Amino acid sequence: MASSCVDDLDARRCWVCFATDEDEPMSQWVRPCRCRGTAKWVHQVCLQRWIDEKQGGSSTAKVSCPQCNAEYIIVFPPLGPLLQSVEFVDKLINKFCPIAAAGVVVGSLYWSAVTYGAVTVMQVLGHKEGLEVMEKADPMFLFVGLPTIPLALILGKMVRWEDHVLRLWRRHVRKMSFLNYILPHLTAGLATRTPAEPTPLSDPVSLTRLLCGALVLPTISTLIGKVCFGYVHSSLHRALLGGMTFVAVKGVVRIYYKQQQYVRQAQRVVKDYEPE
Amino acid sequence: MASSCVDDLDARRCWVCFATDEDEPMSQWVRPCRCRGTAKWVHQVCLQRWIDEKQGGSSTAKVSCPQCNAEYIIVFPPLGPLLQSVEFVDKLINKFCPIAAAGVVVGSLYWSAVTYGAVTVMQVLGHKEGLEVMEKADPMFLFVGLPTIPLALILGKMVRWEDHVLRLWRRHVRKMSFLNYILPHLTAGLATRTPAEPTPLSDPVSLTRLLCGALVLPTISTLIGKVCFGYVHSSLHRALLGGMTFVAVKGVVRIYYKQQQYVRQAQRVVKDYEPE
Repeated sequence: MASSCVDDLDARRCWVCFATDEDEPMSQWVRPCRCRGTAKWVHQVCLQRWIDEKQGGSSTAKVSCPQCNAEYIIVFPPLGPLLQSVEFVDKLINKFCPIAAAGVVVGSLYWSAVTYGAVTVMQVLGHKEGLEVMEKADPMFLFVGLPTIPLALILGKMVRWEDHVLRLWRRHVRKMSFLNYILPHLTAGLATRTPAEPTPLSDPVSLTRLLCGALVLPTISTLIGKVCFGYVHSSLHRALLGGMTFVAVKGVVRIYYKQQQYVRQAQRVVKDYEPE
Repeated sequence: MASSCVDDLDARRCWVCFATDEDEPMSQWVRPCRCRGTAKWVHQVCLQRWIDEKQGGSSTAKVSCPQCNAEYIIVFPPLGPLLQSVEFVDKLINKFCPIAAAGVVVGSLYWSAVTYGAVTVMQVLGHKEGLEVMEKADPMFLFVGLPTIPLALILGKMVRWEDHVLRLWRRHVRKMSFLNYILPHLTAGLATRTPAEPTPLSDPVSLTRLLCGALVLPTISTLIGKVCFGYVHSSLHRALLGGMTFVAVKGVVRIYYKQQQYVRQAQRVVKDYEPE
């Protein structure tokens, strides 16, 4: 302790460059923290360089002594009123821009939804009639109603009615034993094992599938309506009938496929290992 | 080793439930891997349950023995031609949907860019004249030219000309010693220390700032053009003059502010620690 006190009074040693008073008699010294003994002395220049490295480019970051954890007191020359106001405006812009950028993204999505809605109206009602309907409608109604079309399509696609039907089917299939004679491949094996089923919409691929399926539905509905329900006069009714047909047929195929996969899973067998 | 052989012949013990032949005489056994001794035997039902747990919902995942690493041979009942085609279509849709969803996102961005471009043309040329110009133009030209407007604004904003001017200024400032008399606060302290400067566009906030600054430029240019250059007849020229004035004034303020920050950084001082 005594020697440390002597060190303190006699020789200062910079903890960055290890030089003493004798080595660099002209350097400016600073005692920036609570550390005692020789460890408290450091060259102003060395410490500045060390702080620069710690801050890594962000000039307002706070830096503390790695030993005693005391925060360094860094003093800057005063800022003039002009620069103070520039700094204030700069900070204001920095605060406002993330919100504005989020607004740009949301606005872009909204505008795409409005456009999609308008295209869908023209597709389903026919180009001319669709334009007429939209021209007659209240603009506010259009700005709310048109983007609701893709939103409703996506939400509608999220209703997994096939799963509910399938669950109902599985619950009642054992009661209706006559089905075993008609559709043996749909009921067999249910007693042996209940296989695990994947959770719906858990992976990114099924999310993209949801989006694409929802957005392509009006086009498919219009096409099926034109092909299968050409005798219906109103193009709206034609598209609706086409859409319902498509959803129903797809639902039945999907239920059949899922149930078959389920039965196959239940009937899987692990084979004995056979060395080649 | 001898006892293991006897075990093998005499008593089978399931490595999942630890039951032997005596405990459950009716259970079906399987020898699914390269393991020897009692470890090779397992109940079909127990192994199925264990595989289900390992697969965690993805029914096609491959599962291996945790001891000998041999892959289990899992056999499914055959798939009919109808279901095979359904499975093929399902896989095709799964492959196509991520691409289509990416297309939807890109298309949405593109459409927003087209709209922004059209709004900007109408803003800069005036509503009536802008519409006339766009109606006369070739549609292909519009579909390429309009989205180029926001793109060019963003790319233009990425050219950090102020930084180049500032670097030039700093390189020449020492040679022009007379400046020290006129603008001492802009040149002082440069010799002491070269402070670290933040890398531009490294954080998300400055990215949002880039986006917002680029997109708001035409509006600001039109406004400044109307206020300061009302005597110019052409609204395009007015907006261009307004834009150039804005960019120049902002650049000068920015250079001044940055240089001042730089000088303040160079002149910062770490103070001695003073206990309260």
